[in-house]
Amino acid sequence: MTRKIRMGMVGGGEGAFIGAVHRMAANLDGQIELVCGAFSSDPERSKRSGAALYLAPERCYEDYQQMMAAEALLPATERMDFVAIVTPNHMHFPIARAAIEQGFHVMSDKPATLDLNEVLELRALLEGSGLLFGLTHTYTGYPMVKEARAQVLAGELGSIRKVLVEYPQGWLSEPQDSTENKQAAWRLDPSKAGVSSCMGDIGVHAFNLAEYISNLQVTELCADLHSFVDRRLLDDDGSVLLRFGEQARGALTASQVCLGEENDLRIRIYGDKASLDWRQQEPNTLLIKYQDKPAQVLRAGSDYLSPVALANCRTPGGHPEGYLEAFANLYRNFASQIKAQLADETACAVALDLPGINEGVRGMAFIEQVVVASNSQEKWHQLPSY
Amino acid sequence: MTRKIRMGMVGGGEGAFIGAVHRMAANLDGQIELVCGAFSSDPERSKRSGAALYLAPERCYEDYQQMMAAEALLPATERMDFVAIVTPNHMHFPIARAAIEQGFHVMSDKPATLDLNEVLELRALLEGSGLLFGLTHTYTGYPMVKEARAQVLAGELGSIRKVLVEYPQGWLSEPQDSTENKQAAWRLDPSKAGVSSCMGDIGVHAFNLAEYISNLQVTELCADLHSFVDRRLLDDDGSVLLRFGEQARGALTASQVCLGEENDLRIRIYGDKASLDWRQQEPNTLLIKYQDKPAQVLRAGSDYLSPVALANCRTPGGHPEGYLEAFANLYRNFASQIKAQLADETACAVALDLPGINEGVRGMAFIEQVVVASNSQEKWHQLPSY
Amino acid sequence: MTRKIRMGMVGGGEGAFIGAVHRMAANLDGQIELVCGAFSSDPERSKRSGAALYLAPERCYEDYQQMMAAEALLPATERMDFVAIVTPNHMHFPIARAAIEQGFHVMSDKPATLDLNEVLELRALLEGSGLLFGLTHTYTGYPMVKEARAQVLAGELGSIRKVLVEYPQGWLSEPQDSTENKQAAWRLDPSKAGVSSCMGDIGVHAFNLAEYISNLQVTELCADLHSFVDRRLLDDDGSVLLRFGEQARGALTASQVCLGEENDLRIRIYGDKASLDWRQQEPNTLLIKYQDKPAQVLRAGSDYLSPVALANCRTPGGHPEGYLEAFANLYRNFASQIKAQLADETACAVALDLPGINEGVRGMAFIEQVVVASNSQEKWHQLPSY
Amino acid sequence: MTRKIRMGMVGGGEGAFIGAVHRMAANLDGQIELVCGAFSSDPERSKRSGAALYLAPERCYEDYQQMMAAEALLPATERMDFVAIVTPNHMHFPIARAAIEQGFHVMSDKPATLDLNEVLELRALLEGSGLLFGLTHTYTGYPMVKEARAQVLAGELGSIRKVLVEYPQGWLSEPQDSTENKQAAWRLDPSKAGVSSCMGDIGVHAFNLAEYISNLQVTELCADLHSFVDRRLLDDDGSVLLRFGEQARGALTASQVCLGEENDLRIRIYGDKASLDWRQQEPNTLLIKYQDKPAQVLRAGSDYLSPVALANCRTPGGHPEGYLEAFANLYRNFASQIKAQLADETACAVALDLPGINEGVRGMAFIEQVVVASNSQEKWHQLPSY
Repeated sequence: MTRKIRMGMVGGGEGAFIGAVHRMAANLDGQIELVCGAFSSDPERSKRSGAALYLAPERCYEDYQQMMAAEALLPATERMDFVAIVTPNHMHFPIARAAIEQGFHVMSDKPATLDLNEVLELRALLEGSGLLFGLTHTYTGYPMVKEARAQVLAGELGSIRKVLVEYPQGWLSEPQDSTENKQAAWRLDPSKAGVSSCMGDIGVHAFNLAEYISNLQVTELCADLHSFVDRRLLDDDGSVLLRFGEQARGALTASQVCLGEENDLRIRIYGDKASLDWRQQEPNTLLIKYQDKPAQVLRAGSDYLSPVALANCRTPGGHPEGYLEAFANLYRNFASQIKAQLADETACAVALDLPGINEGVRGMAFIEQVVVASNSQEKWHQLPSY
Repeated sequence: MTRKIRMGMVGGGEGAFIGAVHRMAANLDGQIELVCGAFSSDPERSKRSGAALYLAPERCYEDYQQMMAAEALLPATERMDFVAIVTPNHMHFPIARAAIEQGFHVMSDKPATLDLNEVLELRALLEGSGLLFGLTHTYTGYPMVKEARAQVLAGELGSIRKVLVEYPQGWLSEPQDSTENKQAAWRLDPSKAGVSSCMGDIGVHAFNLAEYISNLQVTELCADLHSFVDRRLLDDDGSVLLRFGEQARGALTASQVCLGEENDLRIRIYGDKASLDWRQQEPNTLLIKYQDKPAQVLRAGSDYLSPVALANCRTPGGHPEGYLEAFANLYRNFASQIKAQLADETACAVALDLPGINEGVRGMAFIEQVVVASNSQEKWHQLPSY
Repeated sequence: MTRKIRMGMVGGGEGAFIGAVHRMAANLDGQIELVCGAFSSDPERSKRSGAALYLAPERCYEDYQQMMAAEALLPATERMDFVAIVTPNHMHFPIARAAIEQGFHVMSDKPATLDLNEVLELRALLEGSGLLFGLTHTYTGYPMVKEARAQVLAGELGSIRKVLVEYPQGWLSEPQDSTENKQAAWRLDPSKAGVSSCMGDIGVHAFNLAEYISNLQVTELCADLHSFVDRRLLDDDGSVLLRFGEQARGALTASQVCLGEENDLRIRIYGDKASLDWRQQEPNTLLIKYQDKPAQVLRAGSDYLSPVALANCRTPGGHPEGYLEAFANLYRNFASQIKAQLADETACAVALDLPGINEGVRGMAFIEQVVVASNSQEKWHQLPSY
Repeated sequence: MTRKIRMGMVGGGEGAFIGAVHRMAANLDGQIELVCGAFSSDPERSKRSGAALYLAPERCYEDYQQMMAAEALLPATERMDFVAIVTPNHMHFPIARAAIEQGFHVMSDKPATLDLNEVLELRALLEGSGLLFGLTHTYTGYPMVKEARAQVLAGELGSIRKVLVEYPQGWLSEPQDSTENKQAAWRLDPSKAGVSSCMGDIGVHAFNLAEYISNLQVTELCADLHSFVDRRLLDDDGSVLLRFGEQARGALTASQVCLGEENDLRIRIYGDKASLDWRQQEPNTLLIKYQDKPAQVLRAGSDYLSPVALANCRTPGGHPEGYLEAFANLYRNFASQIKAQLADETACAVALDLPGINEGVRGMAFIEQVVVASNSQEKWHQLPSY
């Protein structure tokens, strides 16, 4: 393998938040180069954004359709390998479909699509296409989240009984003037965000993390969503009771109106042998608790970690890694999958440990069902496997 | 006032946990002296327990009935002023009734009684009796809990939107042999504990704390209780969705099978102006969070606290106070109420800030309704005011 | 043993800080009763203070001389067993001497005396007297400090290399008007405090803690003391380099002008097998660190602790104990020593684990030598064993 | 400006630690591209390392002399703009000199050189050359370190009195077999590391951080260095008393044998109005303490921060940034300085806030003088300005 993996981007022009994050994540390891983009629905803005990223003008496209068509015509030695989708939710599916139709791999921001139907259609398109699909559930990229899952898989916790996951934010505590805050505007607009704001934007991260670490699936839920700020069309807060089959129970709470909270995702999982506690704002620590001996403080970068955790660390203990490194782990793993495919090899287990279309389907099913459940007077609602 | 307040105790003999806690709490400030007791249903054990506490043999009674009768016959200069009830739940009401009938004030461990009917009857007995009733919801005795409530009452948080309260413990994670652990045995026996173990023992503390600090009342709830350990007759875990009228929502989770957790009661309350966060295991700190300025770390013993918080501190900042001091605050306030009554004065506001029969009624209503709700397929259940 | 131990107190009248702390500590376990006192150099104030403590007027003495004489004349069934000295430093020795001359045990606040000569004389008086002397180096009373020492004694840390101890406070950051703050006034007055304020008041605690936990003795030191606030006669800040023979080195820093700090005593000890970290403001946690496995979080009240630590806990894990409980441990152990002597028995190891005259001598030697060292241009100064 | 800044690297081949860190830091923002390197003193290894980084074979040089000469001959549109030096200490100066002689800017790992003479000579070479020199004192790149300095400069702390800085590591707690751990081997070899291991590797970071945040200069010091592990030629531990003119005092402790510590750099600065506390292992938090009001928790990414702190944040609050982001800030600022020079403009204040040759001189003076002081029986040693 003697070349970098080539990335095109849709969305993420001037003033966008998550596009810049995707680019830094892709840059970090020097394995991926940005070669083209359709950064904005405004062609001028797209060109300007591309120029600021040192792209050749001819590869700063006016829209994603143009980009897919033009890149497909470039020689294999030049054209992009995959497209990163960093737009509001309602555009995820059309862009992903266009990419797949032209034979490009897809790295998509979450949630996968606008609704459950779209993601099921997307899964159908991917089947048999030979194309890769990555979904940026960032938090699964943290080394200590991977360690947590490794501990569960190794049976260290015993049988899991209870899962508590919470994701409080405060940034939507006050009414937003939609002209001022682009981030808020589309997330609160049903035509762009889908049926939920809070659960669609962050609740789904909490849900994904719970299923990822616990290696269990939520089978039933009971929900109470609410919108605390006047005239909002979508929920800005919610709590959900969870059942994981007959085995485990749990609670999920997420909010955008927990004033003063930044991004305080935390998960605790209690087994019958040990328990774990991880908090995103101090991501380099994982606490493992026991009933009859002292709790242990596992730290990122330490030699005693499991191989999968160490493979996702870049620095020795005490040199804190953060959100961008976790994000970069997703990109590095995705690039490794593409490299393996280009080399006609099987990607290693570390590279395959990346959220994909199945996590996308689970997430969309969760979002839809939690809204149904909240609107219902019945207590429990099934969360089927699709 | 030239004498100490005199306390009798029912329960709390050799090997008991909470009885010793009550005695240390009563001792701390040198305002209360233990003068008599019926420490055990086994008369020999009761005598032996009393002797170890330096009591005169003639005031170590065989049972509470004997104690109430005998003490009532003593001259006013000698007889106890109040009885502390530190037995399992099922004895709270009969003992309290016997005390009231003989004209003694009552300081009772929580929950107030075995069921809602009993506590309503108890309230009726107290009405017009002129007797005082204190209920040891210990956590309301912490200075920083009082500060939290003071901040809410002063409007610092604005309108409250969300209340998250959690109380994970792990000590019942494994099956208990009832002959070995007295504490576990009665708490899991419906005839002694009532309709719930987890919610009756600790969930009710979390509920009380939420209502105390928020100054709101829970009006509706939806619950999912469970017993994770085989052959248990009562719940050892549960999560509850809460509504506080139209204004606020919340979630309460409590567990005795969160393996590795000690006694990790925590409450977060989010308003539309500020939010607060308090955790019992580090009780001398209260965090107040804002959206547009740094969070503030309020510390027990600091001059900037509200008068009610300072009145419940015994040491300057940095000299940590804990569970026994919080407990002692309840006893000190109760003693102050009795002193005021003896002096025909009105007790000060600080002394009156003590859980009583109304909190007892709320607690029993919560316990009963949360069990009803858990067993129901309907989502929401009212929590009426009695 | 069928009676409580009887305590007299010198100092600690209205408005005093540490006297009230001693009384609460003595009260907590119901083993000690306050029977008399000379609470103030102002006889009226002494009477008033005693009355507020429910003492009989005839046992509220005008001064300590009167108290010693009068108590000595009381029958053995009534007179105090020991005297608690809670005055400023310059009175410690004369009061202790008077008590010893009348045959009373002594529990003294620290530092033991005004200077090294006095404490050596005090030691001589105690020798062969059969009387007990306790010194309230409070911080050695914490369960997790005892656990720390137990781990060192058991060899868990291996050979100790480095000791870092720090004690920052901020309460003397601004000039005190001596008429306003009694606590500050005498601590900054050489005739009452001795040769040092910062090192005499808190540095000596840090020094004692370092020697207690490490089980090593400081043999050489190099010091830099300073007074940051104008016109102060004594130091309010200092840092000290330490050598523990050839084996270990360390640093001690203490300050009364670390603005914003409350009482943040912390000690870290590094061995060649493991290390420990304890912080007084969160006293129920002890961290044990390893190089090749996760750090362990030891918690007060846990079954896995060493017997000496558990013997100094009153509540199960998660029910925080604090400063007053640590202080009460000193009193409980002292009372146990007296009880054993009264019963002609040998006190148990737990009871004997209490700072006494030897710690007093070490402390006074440290205070004097650290001041000498600070004033010297030579680097190293011996700290001899006396 | 329509191109990326071009970087060459000396050192950092396969198996090196800090070279990979420099590359990730340079990659993150997509402003810098690696174009050439002499990655190892072994030419084959250098080629192999370059190939793994996707470099053209002709720009993977055999040694730094060849690289400087060859790059200087390339057209301005291709040749590197600056060289990153990531070798052991003894090579820093010869490489920097060679770069300067060929007109390349220099980004050097710390400490600047092997000894004080070299760095003074380096400063002379830079003077008048028009070339830029950056020094990777990484910790100054953290947003909350910049916020700390901004608070000091704005007078928020008042007059600074005390500086406590500590840097405990444990990774050299055991004897290293020099063939096994390359990182340890050269750091403990006087011919490659210079006169100190602990102070030269990490003590100098602590010193730099103290001067950077406090905006004061150390003028005198007293030191006690030691080597705890047998047969080490250089110190692995040390404590230093500091004086900052007449105004402030302090203490610095650094160690490589604090077993169990990762990289726990912490600084506390106490003024007469407020104080600050920052810890590298949780770098997104800065605590500001006051005497008469609650401490404030400042958090990276928050709108209320000073402009210089915000300019060094990449993500909103609660999305933790770490060591690589801090490092990347140094590179971004350095690239901005180069861009400004290329455009014949003055770099902005944010870009100029980067350690350079003056910090290099201070650091080398500190390292040399602390070793002199440790070997002396005199207490105080001057730290002159060069």
